[in-house]
Order: sequence, then structure tokens, then C-alpha cells
Amino acid sequence: MAATRATAARIVALRFDGDALVLLDQTQLPWRERYLRLTSAEQVADAIRRLAVRGAPMIGVAAAYAMALDPRPELLKAARPTAVNLARAVDRVAAAPNRLAEARAIHAEEEAASDAIAAHGADFLAGAGARRILTHCNTGALAAPGRGTALAVIAELALRGGLEPVLATESRPLLQGARLTVWELAKLEIPHELIVDSAAPGLIASGAVDAVIVGCDRVAANGDVANKVGTYGLALGAQAAGIPFVVAGPTSTVDPGTPTGADITIEERDPDEVRAAGGQPLTLPGTHTRNPAFDVTPAALITALVTERGITSPR
Amino acid sequence: MAATRATAARIVALRFDGDALVLLDQTQLPWRERYLRLTSAEQVADAIRRLAVRGAPMIGVAAAYAMALDPRPELLKAARPTAVNLARAVDRVAAAPNRLAEARAIHAEEEAASDAIAAHGADFLAGAGARRILTHCNTGALAAPGRGTALAVIAELALRGGLEPVLATESRPLLQGARLTVWELAKLEIPHELIVDSAAPGLIASGAVDAVIVGCDRVAANGDVANKVGTYGLALGAQAAGIPFVVAGPTSTVDPGTPTGADITIEERDPDEVRAAGGQPLTLPGTHTRNPAFDVTPAALITALVTERGITSPR
Repeated sequence: MAATRATAARIVALRFDGDALVLLDQTQLPWRERYLRLTSAEQVADAIRRLAVRGAPMIGVAAAYAMALDPRPELLKAARPTAVNLARAVDRVAAAPNRLAEARAIHAEEEAASDAIAAHGADFLAGAGARRILTHCNTGALAAPGRGTALAVIAELALRGGLEPVLATESRPLLQGARLTVWELAKLEIPHELIVDSAAPGLIASGAVDAVIVGCDRVAANGDVANKVGTYGLALGAQAAGIPFVVAGPTSTVDPGTPTGADITIEERDPDEVRAAGGQPLTLPGTHTRNPAFDVTPAALITALVTERGITSPR
Repeated sequence: MAATRATAARIVALRFDGDALVLLDQTQLPWRERYLRLTSAEQVADAIRRLAVRGAPMIGVAAAYAMALDPRPELLKAARPTAVNLARAVDRVAAAPNRLAEARAIHAEEEAASDAIAAHGADFLAGAGARRILTHCNTGALAAPGRGTALAVIAELALRGGLEPVLATESRPLLQGARLTVWELAKLEIPHELIVDSAAPGLIASGAVDAVIVGCDRVAANGDVANKVGTYGLALGAQAAGIPFVVAGPTSTVDPGTPTGADITIEERDPDEVRAAGGQPLTLPGTHTRNPAFDVTPAALITALVTERGITSPR
């Protein structure tokens, strides 16, 4: 497929309409564009647990609005323990004199961060001559307010022109790549190719990829990164091939209170996520599983961390 | 789950009954145990292409019997170009005075090789103190006549006692791990846990795995190995964690005519394999894909190659 200019289309996955939080239900994509209208903390916590809303920056903003509607901090914090944004947004709104104004401020800050990340990341990857980009999971407008994080960088590169088709991993078990990233890239008219997760290291080794860029669920103080399961294997593949491995996320995902990746608790999710795909059983019923939602990539494997403040090198 | 002794149950996935090749249809597992009765080279080539029969040693034996029934060498060789066993078995039967006797001899040799691989591999892993084993794809009695290759080693370790639950990758896109390895391990009463492919490197890094053992589709003269897509990423994970990465296969998969892994043509399969799982669509229709069936693991990452002749170290 030839390099092409993408459109500047915008996807709005979260908005506050005065008395409710309105969310695009990500469990229904790419089949149905259905919106949830949530008015209680319990509803928002449930949407976070079910991954109807997901992405560390996005669930921070969702929880901030939930705190404005129905302040139940502990319930909200327990919905997704790995994302530090969530706990931080909840505490910030709880301490504010005007909760709704504070939630709106957090939302606006995340949108501005997304635009800055897109610009800094695109400058970095363009400077490295990267035209063939591989990404993992979903890190676009569905994952962070504004344009997203890693996928915002890719969208910015596409707007500037010269991007080759993006390689997107399907991101088992919940297929955020196949369902959400493909949906976003199609909306933005950015050419892309879907791969199974385990094909990535071999494709990188074969010379088909110039750079890997992913998001992050939590960055430890030493620069280790917790992100969607499978991220670490991509970092190993990039290191072996000598190509940049770039992590993009707002500084709200950095947690100075977590010294290293080893201190991050990895959430173990429902076995049925592994036993099925898209509702279709894939194995014998009752099969035992291990289902870690995240893995940890050591700082030494990360070429650049892109935040709204610019580029840093964790190693 | 406590360490346990497995049963010595045997699974017979291929037999010749006088005028037909009878194959357990692997596309129907684990849901239905249905046998195909094949009498022409066209039928056998189709079964190989559809992966109704698969695994490098197994398709070599299937093609050998097909040559005895209906000798069409080129048709059979074209069905799965990566497996060198297939071309070699076809040529060997073609040159023999009694085709059926030659096919039976190849079958018996592969069964004997499987038993020898199981013993050598179990000796090696037991000597390394490995009790927590991770494996990829399907390499048992469905993949190679007799007990299989890598899974035969695991079954032998289970018989000897002390094995912890086996970590089995699902092996997207066609889920040979979730469908076939889980089915075999359940039949053999060997405790196991299923994981998504991309969880393996993180679990290895977390210290949950003592050794990785996989099969091979082709071994190049320099020791590089082509195997199911995803194998290379597991080898990188094992190297980073300093645990053994073991490849098991009969010498019939070694091809002195292929100098290095770079000389192995990687088969690109149907996009619909990536777009769906178990018949369930996972992404937008018409999504472009890359779907390499195999990847190449350099010899330098392989701790031991287990064949019927014993252990060699490719590096």
C-alpha cells in the first residue's frame, strides 16, 4: 500500500453533558457505536471493570467526573488498581472546592497532553526516519482524551505524510487492537495491517518495522513500564533488531511512589477471557488459565518515553 | 495445583487401514473426534492445506501413505512448502520398489524417533531441574507419529513425576495450543494452564517458568529453526531470563540443503485466519493483514536441539 495522507477526523469517546458521563461503549466496538449514559459511581466503576471505558488516562477522567456526580473514592479506585491516574484523579477531585470544575480541568489537561505527546512523538520518530511503525493494544482517542497517546503519535505522523501501513497487533485476550485500533485507524483513513500478537517479533527481525510505539498503564520511578500484556516481548524484539522502542503517555501515568516495575501489582483477569474470543469458546470448558492483564518492560529496553513535556530516555 | 503423575494413555491420530489413510480431523478438535478416510493424493493434499493433518513429522507420514495410494509427488509437495519432511518422504517413497512398505517404514521410524526424543528430552530437562515447562503450538501425538516431539518430552516428564502444571500458549491464529495441546494434555491427565501467546515473555521474566520446549518445522544446516509463528519471541524471553530454550524434532526435520534460517521461505496464510478466531469475526471485514505461519529462531538462542539421536547444541 502506498504512503498516504490521513484525514484529521476526531473521535470523541467521552464527554460530560451536565448531569451524566457519556461514554462510547468500547465492549461493543467495532460492531456497534453505542453510548452509555452514567450517573453513579457504581455505574462508572462497573464500566471501568468491564472495559467499556479503558486506557489509563481515559479512566482517570471518567473517575474524575464520577467523583463530581457521586463521590465514592474507594469504590472508584478499586475498579482498576494498575492505573495510577485513576487514584490520582479521584484524590484530586475529592480535595477540590468545586468537584465538577476540577474534573473538567483534569479532562482539559489530558486533552492538551495528548496533543503535545502527538507532536513530540512524531518529531522523535520522524527524526529517526521511522515510516514503518508497529503498535500494540489501543492507545488512541478511545484510550486517552483528545487523540490518545501512542496512536496519536501515529496519527500525527500520518497527517504529516509518508507513513507506511501501520502494523497493529490484535492484542489478545480482549482484542483491543483488532477491535479498537483497527476501528480508529479506519475512521482516520490511516492504512494498516492487523497481525496476531506473536507475529510481531519475527516481523521485526525480518526488517519490516522501523520503530515500535506503545502506551503505558503505569511508569515506575526508575522508568520501568507496566503496559498491556505482550509489551515486554515487543521490547525484546525491538532491542534484538536494534530499532527504537518508544513509550508514550502523559506524566499522569508516572508514579514516583512506585520505585520499580517489580513493585507494580499485575492484575490477573477472568479465565473466560482466555478461553474465548469475541464470545466464541476456543478451548475445552473449565480449562485452567493464567491471565495477567499487564507485563513489565524494564527501563533498559525503552529508547524514549514521550510525555507532554517532551522526550526522556529512561535508560 | 500439586505435581501429579500422568497416565500413559496413547492418542492415535493417523493410521493406514489397507486401502485408505485414516486421520483424526484436527480442524474439528477439541469439539468433535471425527476421522477422515482418504484414498487420493488430492484428498491428502487438501487435508494438509486445511491443517486437518499437521505437524512436520505427521504430514511427512501422511504424504508417504498418499504416495502409496496415489503417487502424485508434485501435488503433495506443494501442499506445505516449509516442512522438509514432506518433500523427503515423497521422494523416498517414489524411489522405493514397494511404496506401501516404504511408507510403513517411514511411519515406524517416526514412531521410534518420537519415543527416543521423549526419553532424551526428559533426561535433559530433568537434569536441568526443570519442573515448570512452557510450550507453544501443538507438538504431541497429533503433530508427530507416536507421542509427538516437544509434548512427548513433557508427557515423559509427567510420567516420571514431579512436573508442575504445563503452561500452554493458545497459538493464534489457528489456536493449536488452545484446541489441540489442551485436548491432548486433558486426555493424558497432565495438569496445565492456558495462556495467550503474548503473556509468555512476561511470565518467563517473572520467574514462573524453568524451561521452554517447542517443536520445529525445519532446521537449517547452521541450526536456525523455523517453527510456528511466535517461537522466536519465546526464545528471546528465555534468553533474557537465562532459562533453557529447547527445540525437539526428528532428524527428518533437519535440512542440510538449507544453509541458514534466512534461506527458509515463510509461508503467508489466509487473512481470514487473523480476522477471525474459531469462526467468530474479530475485526472489521476486509481488514488487511500480515499472516506469516512461521518465524525463524537463530541457532544462538537455542540451548539444545533434541533429536532421536540425542542432544546437540546448535550454538
